[in-house]
Amino acid sequence: MLFERLCIIGPGLIGGSIARMARARGDVARHVVAYAATAESRARVRALGFVDSVEDDIADAVRGADCVVLCIPVGAYAGVMARIAPHLAPGAILTDAGSTKGSVVRDLSPLLPPGVHLVPAHPMAGTEHSGPDAGFATLFEGRYCIITPLEGCDPAALAKVREMWVRAGSIVESMDPATHDKVVAMVSHLPHLIAFTICGTADDLAEETREAVLRFAASGFRDFTRIASSDVNMWRDVFLNNREALLEMLARFTEDAHALARAIRYGEAPFIEDRIRRGRKIRRGLIERKQD
Amino acid sequence: MLFERLCIIGPGLIGGSIARMARARGDVARHVVAYAATAESRARVRALGFVDSVEDDIADAVRGADCVVLCIPVGAYAGVMARIAPHLAPGAILTDAGSTKGSVVRDLSPLLPPGVHLVPAHPMAGTEHSGPDAGFATLFEGRYCIITPLEGCDPAALAKVREMWVRAGSIVESMDPATHDKVVAMVSHLPHLIAFTICGTADDLAEETREAVLRFAASGFRDFTRIASSDVNMWRDVFLNNREALLEMLARFTEDAHALARAIRYGEAPFIEDRIRRGRKIRRGLIERKQD
Repeated sequence: MLFERLCIIGPGLIGGSIARMARARGDVARHVVAYAATAESRARVRALGFVDSVEDDIADAVRGADCVVLCIPVGAYAGVMARIAPHLAPGAILTDAGSTKGSVVRDLSPLLPPGVHLVPAHPMAGTEHSGPDAGFATLFEGRYCIITPLEGCDPAALAKVREMWVRAGSIVESMDPATHDKVVAMVSHLPHLIAFTICGTADDLAEETREAVLRFAASGFRDFTRIASSDVNMWRDVFLNNREALLEMLARFTEDAHALARAIRYGEAPFIEDRIRRGRKIRRGLIERKQD
Repeated sequence: MLFERLCIIGPGLIGGSIARMARARGDVARHVVAYAATAESRARVRALGFVDSVEDDIADAVRGADCVVLCIPVGAYAGVMARIAPHLAPGAILTDAGSTKGSVVRDLSPLLPPGVHLVPAHPMAGTEHSGPDAGFATLFEGRYCIITPLEGCDPAALAKVREMWVRAGSIVESMDPATHDKVVAMVSHLPHLIAFTICGTADDLAEETREAVLRFAASGFRDFTRIASSDVNMWRDVFLNNREALLEMLARFTEDAHALARAIRYGEAPFIEDRIRRGRKIRRGLIERKQD
């Protein structure tokens, strides 16, 4: 048994999937306890029955837990940490599932009680659904989980968090928080920013054209809108908490888009062909890595 | 029988699929003839056997055909038209499958012999593969085909082209060439421009980050690269031949992306939430239209 008392703060898509995975395996935690911010969510989690207990008070939820997992929008970390820090058990592990890691270290470290081990993690899994009903035990199977250990991190605590994700079926990788934030800005946050934007751009077209756009949406636009159907609060917080890396990647992308636009304007065929070929090259790279 | 002699110029993914569809149905053309630009392609089409005959000379291919379909990159239209115009049969229908329609009218109309009926069309179907081997008879089933009839177009010719696409299983719609070009700039060409660009942006990252980007490509980046794995010549020609509409849509998109970036920089949460909500709204619009 990996943990005696595993505490899930925020039993939505991710937190609810961790809880279901732990219950399904039986070797992750003897007791799974959850706390949700609203009475409605707590009632729903109780009704779904995928945890052993649900606490109405966040302090009661973390008290005595040897592992606490934050599964909430990253913008809520600082406020939640202020409420739980006094109640974290000595020797407990504090980990999370947030999509940004620099902000997590920034918001959690200052309030970390002595003897509590912070091990930030980012399971790269999800669906377009959210809430307590959306989770399932196999969500993390075959997906990457990036752990961003801090300097001087307790090796035993790190090993336990790693082991939890291995048992969830994930491929676990380590990197520093800054590299993590740059990589996910490129592979996930920038594509989402673009997807949300292009939907708004379409929505602003004149009525007749907009109707036709929706009617004739070819595969390209559908792929873009697919990733745009995501949780509002989560993505607002991701954008705000990975601001620097995201704005840097957007600036690089915009420069490149303008270079291609200029080539189109002036009919520079070789430049355009080169850009298309590079897209195919990256695509092949992904296929070779069996990421498709 | 719709046509006596159906001539396919460019029996690749689209042309080869039209030929296979016509042969599979048996009520589209008594004879299907094809012309391909290279001896290698002609040999491959002969070997695959999905047309009744393959001509080495483009003039022989169109001679006596009552319907000629151009299935070549739109940048090749003007050159091909100069070669086939003198040999088009009186009363013949000239149609196409190009992704831009303003350029088609521009390149084909001036050389159109009297009595030959031009009916531009755009079947909105495709795969990431190309060439004679890539086609299949059911490619167009359930997909839109947009016909952009010119003013004074012969009603009988228009009805025959429409009927060919109905028999191919497509949902046929009509609009003017300028509206068509704006709509596809938004739903297809701009997403492709973005997809090619973001792949290049990733490719330019420092070696270590690029490797991690490829390794951890989340669903967002995968969706973007999926549509980037497309034919180089076709997309170069699409970009160059729908330049005005594409650059206009890119300008609108860039303005919107910069507005969102500014909101992220200054922490304007309500603006960001609004943009994310609009993405979800368009997404719902697509689902309601059963386009997913």
